[in-house]
Amino acid sequence: MIRIHILGSAAGGGLPQWNCACANCEAARAGKIAPQTQSSIAISNDSEDQRQWFLINASPDLPCQIENTPQLQPRRDSPRNTPISAVFLTNADIDHALGLLLLRQDETPLVVYATDETRTALAWIDRVLARFRGLEWRKIAADFQPLSSSLVFRAIQLPGGVAYQFRDDTSGATVLLAPSVGESTDELRNALHKSDVVLFDGTFWSDGELATVRPGARTSREMNHLPISDGSLDLLRQSPARRKIFTHINNTNPILMPGTRERAQVEQAGIVIARDGLEITL
Amino acid sequence: MIRIHILGSAAGGGLPQWNCACANCEAARAGKIAPQTQSSIAISNDSEDQRQWFLINASPDLPCQIENTPQLQPRRDSPRNTPISAVFLTNADIDHALGLLLLRQDETPLVVYATDETRTALAWIDRVLARFRGLEWRKIAADFQPLSSSLVFRAIQLPGGVAYQFRDDTSGATVLLAPSVGESTDELRNALHKSDVVLFDGTFWSDGELATVRPGARTSREMNHLPISDGSLDLLRQSPARRKIFTHINNTNPILMPGTRERAQVEQAGIVIARDGLEITL
Repeated sequence: MIRIHILGSAAGGGLPQWNCACANCEAARAGKIAPQTQSSIAISNDSEDQRQWFLINASPDLPCQIENTPQLQPRRDSPRNTPISAVFLTNADIDHALGLLLLRQDETPLVVYATDETRTALAWIDRVLARFRGLEWRKIAADFQPLSSSLVFRAIQLPGGVAYQFRDDTSGATVLLAPSVGESTDELRNALHKSDVVLFDGTFWSDGELATVRPGARTSREMNHLPISDGSLDLLRQSPARRKIFTHINNTNPILMPGTRERAQVEQAGIVIARDGLEITL
Repeated sequence: MIRIHILGSAAGGGLPQWNCACANCEAARAGKIAPQTQSSIAISNDSEDQRQWFLINASPDLPCQIENTPQLQPRRDSPRNTPISAVFLTNADIDHALGLLLLRQDETPLVVYATDETRTALAWIDRVLARFRGLEWRKIAADFQPLSSSLVFRAIQLPGGVAYQFRDDTSGATVLLAPSVGESTDELRNALHKSDVVLFDGTFWSDGELATVRPGARTSREMNHLPISDGSLDLLRQSPARRKIFTHINNTNPILMPGTRERAQVEQAGIVIARDGLEITL
């Protein structure tokens, strides 16, 4: 059995974002919609008594996410310990990597899976952490490789980053974790058709969304995020996955607000809008 | 009038710390003592309708601290704005500086006051932020210099960092903000005698405290923190300040737990133990 926890469902900046007074951020401050922390996912296929968890991206909100998730907290039988075994990075974005620095208080190097490009782009984190526990970088590949007990994983190369597919070889259950997708590829479409559960990039509804609150801002596609309205909604509609979930949702995205036509379109397509603390077992 | 908000009162790692199962961290997880975020202080002397706030250190918990402090949130009359005018760094510790990266979503450079040593040690943050809003570094000095309306400030050089003194030139009210003190100096003792309110380094109770949960860990003094039991308690007892507060308190410190003799000693000396959200006006 695979267990997934959505630790954080927001894009960089979170909801609300410190300097943002858009409708969603103000609604979150007023308690009308739930605040959301920045995108991280935890995955495991271990039983409760032999816990080993893997993180997909390490957001700056990770310590707070750990305190909201008892499974990720230390055992009480020794003063310092953690069930977190490794971090899988999808790219070198600050909101995906800064949490690495917040796991610095340990004696053994932190295992990180990433592309060579991501490793190079994060040399600054590597240097800072070398004064503490250090990082142990591991290669990723397009073919499935073993991770722990019956859990295997592979990386799907995308423009600007990777997605990951995890499979439990005992049950055959397969999950696609793709919080950052700049463009669809044949390999990604293939993975979308061979996964039971899909967590997918839901950053922006429309390509020009960010410029409405920050004039001159880059478009969704320029930031390596396929917009929902003009890309991922159709892509996910065509996937036969049992559960399809948008995550890594920017604070400006209208799908966050109940009653919008954009949210209705997503729900009518059978797609769930992620929220912090959502658990999935398969 | 000077207003001070203790945004976070914990040392690096916070309370509880992600991988720590010490008595205090477990008590915080169980709801027996209040969790505390990492050390940052906000100060202002402006009236409510002309808000301008300064931060002393920018912890990784800053976005969450801003959401807990309405005064630091954006106005509703424009989509992106902030009342935070500048950050004063006491040193280059990660738990004091990482929050700079979390204020990156803005168009204008972030003003940072720091020593040249701190600026050099934080070149990595400078380089990363250059791709976003960038930093505008400002010099600090031992003599008072104007900041905003009637607020003036000066830096007190310490081994391993600085403390800051802020004064309202209209009322004469003076505050000493010293969350990181490795050693006492004549200048610091002088400032302790000429301040109405003192916020002081309360990281560790004893010099060897951290080694009890992490064998081989450095001592309090080696980490540039004067222990309370063997330094700062006496130092603060001798200060005539009206309010004396320990902040930047490590998760291992016994003063966090009600009923300990260490906490009783601090309270008997008339010193307050900081907590997140504590407000002081003078």
